[in-house]
Amino acid sequence: MPQTFTRIAVLGLGLIGGSVLQALTRGGYPVTGFDPDPAESGAARGAGYDLARTPAEAVAEADLVVLAMPLPQLGESLAAIAPTVRPGTIVTDVGTLKVPVLAGVRSTLPGARFVGGHPLAGTEQSGFLASDPMLFRDAPWALALEDDTDLEAWLALAVLWCDLGAKPVPTTAEEQDAAIARVIGLPHVLAEALALTGLHGGELGLSLAAGSYMSGSRVARTRPDLVATWCDGNPALVAALDDAIAWLQSSRDSLAAGRSIMPLARAGHRARIEWEHRAFAPVDLPADAATLREHGRCGGWITAVLEPNGPTRAPLRLLGMRPIQAGALDDVFATGAAVGGV
Amino acid sequence: MPQTFTRIAVLGLGLIGGSVLQALTRGGYPVTGFDPDPAESGAARGAGYDLARTPAEAVAEADLVVLAMPLPQLGESLAAIAPTVRPGTIVTDVGTLKVPVLAGVRSTLPGARFVGGHPLAGTEQSGFLASDPMLFRDAPWALALEDDTDLEAWLALAVLWCDLGAKPVPTTAEEQDAAIARVIGLPHVLAEALALTGLHGGELGLSLAAGSYMSGSRVARTRPDLVATWCDGNPALVAALDDAIAWLQSSRDSLAAGRSIMPLARAGHRARIEWEHRAFAPVDLPADAATLREHGRCGGWITAVLEPNGPTRAPLRLLGMRPIQAGALDDVFATGAAVGGV
Repeated sequence: MPQTFTRIAVLGLGLIGGSVLQALTRGGYPVTGFDPDPAESGAARGAGYDLARTPAEAVAEADLVVLAMPLPQLGESLAAIAPTVRPGTIVTDVGTLKVPVLAGVRSTLPGARFVGGHPLAGTEQSGFLASDPMLFRDAPWALALEDDTDLEAWLALAVLWCDLGAKPVPTTAEEQDAAIARVIGLPHVLAEALALTGLHGGELGLSLAAGSYMSGSRVARTRPDLVATWCDGNPALVAALDDAIAWLQSSRDSLAAGRSIMPLARAGHRARIEWEHRAFAPVDLPADAATLREHGRCGGWITAVLEPNGPTRAPLRLLGMRPIQAGALDDVFATGAAVGGV
Repeated sequence: MPQTFTRIAVLGLGLIGGSVLQALTRGGYPVTGFDPDPAESGAARGAGYDLARTPAEAVAEADLVVLAMPLPQLGESLAAIAPTVRPGTIVTDVGTLKVPVLAGVRSTLPGARFVGGHPLAGTEQSGFLASDPMLFRDAPWALALEDDTDLEAWLALAVLWCDLGAKPVPTTAEEQDAAIARVIGLPHVLAEALALTGLHGGELGLSLAAGSYMSGSRVARTRPDLVATWCDGNPALVAALDDAIAWLQSSRDSLAAGRSIMPLARAGHRARIEWEHRAFAPVDLPADAATLREHGRCGGWITAVLEPNGPTRAPLRLLGMRPIQAGALDDVFATGAAVGGV
């Protein structure tokens, strides 16, 4: 069975870090938090959490370190804990992009066993006061399994995040960043563009804006510097924007020529509805990196890591779920190409 | 005081028409409904509503006719009721675009007093079963006051929709369609583009899609033919798309060059937050078409039509609300222009 943890340090107590702190505490894990921002640490202390005074103090006894600070503070935080983190300590993070973090941790904490992570949870709120121990329930949690990732460390984190109700998704830093470009980066960029240009028609429009403007621009409420850390430096977002702009431009040209928005509306509707109706089936997986990565690539996730039973010393197994109709949307995209969209 | 109604006909009992039928019935108004679709009329009858068997029967005794059928059925419906609608009957509609309806009614029902209307209410659901008598509470309701609109008819409708909890916004067909392009058409087109291209990256992305994808593509759940009636034939939507595409293209180019999404994120965030924080002050308005239109143009709406009090035969007055900081977003748009967005 993968190791359990005797001391977990959570560095950064904003929305995600604060929620991890709360969820792990409720789960009975021994957790120590730290945040350099007096507003966040004050809020956490006010909620009854006992915090470390320095990042080094937080990680001194830890066998798991969760990096939950904003990406721009990552380098400084790693430097602060590097002398104190014990060799072999498992280190993970919760940031949106995995490639930039991977490089930083490898060079600063070469003795640690690093596993990049990204819980797909959050709201347009930020800060400890918005955090919620139930935030991760049913949330996908990308967990990077590179060629040089310690499989035991990966499995220990899979167990831990399953325990918080999340759904660990085995992937690699590069594959998750490419996927995230379309389902996190693109929605944010489109929401910002709508928030701005939707209102650029005068006061009458501001008063008529209702449901569709409201939901379409909801995530423009997110702090702009956070949006930037989720978008900047991800080459896959450029390709995703090219795709979206091609559709918008061809639809704009159709409307200008007196034709209908129907090709885009029909394809978009079908994509959204088919996505909502995806169905899944349980699978039983060996604890093998290549198999697990392929499982994630096909849209699957982990639901449990099974403890070997009895004296047989049977190899470790994982339970998971995978889509039963992978590729159901392929013909929607083919239709898109046919009408000149993508 | 504007006239009250002795018989109201509601033609079309989908989400909006069904909600009007229910809300007016609860408000104690004498209402007759009709829908040619057995699914909708069956659902309405099942909910206890007594319906007419033909549109002509529904409007025969009516002094107000509410046209609530989908835009493509409008011509046929107008032809069906034209011989039966009595001269002077007030006719209104609830469609999204006002210019196409105005032309159709003027030619088919020249003896009626037509006032184009558009409640800014709805969900991504459709049909009578999704209708809700509370749908219009606090919803803006554009009410077109053209140069040749009968002011008494306009006021009578303003009273009626205020009574359902809505906020009548005086405008013209052309001005409302221009405003709607940005706050209804554009959000739908962007949601369709996101629904489609957001998922175009493989199964891993489908499983990682979460909150921002979900809210950004919510209105792609709307029936595509309805989206088309809200978008097609509105020249202002082409300009709105040009605006949005310009922002997306300049942001895409920034990202490709290793720069940040910050200019767009900052402007979009500020637009959304300032929009949420708009503040309003009460105003007292004369029942004068030009004044009312200017009130709507400045972002104002009507809250009540006051009955002249006592024997003075004082002129009719309206109460309304208007933004107290109109133009607060002007410098956000100026910033946009400066960074090459719009």
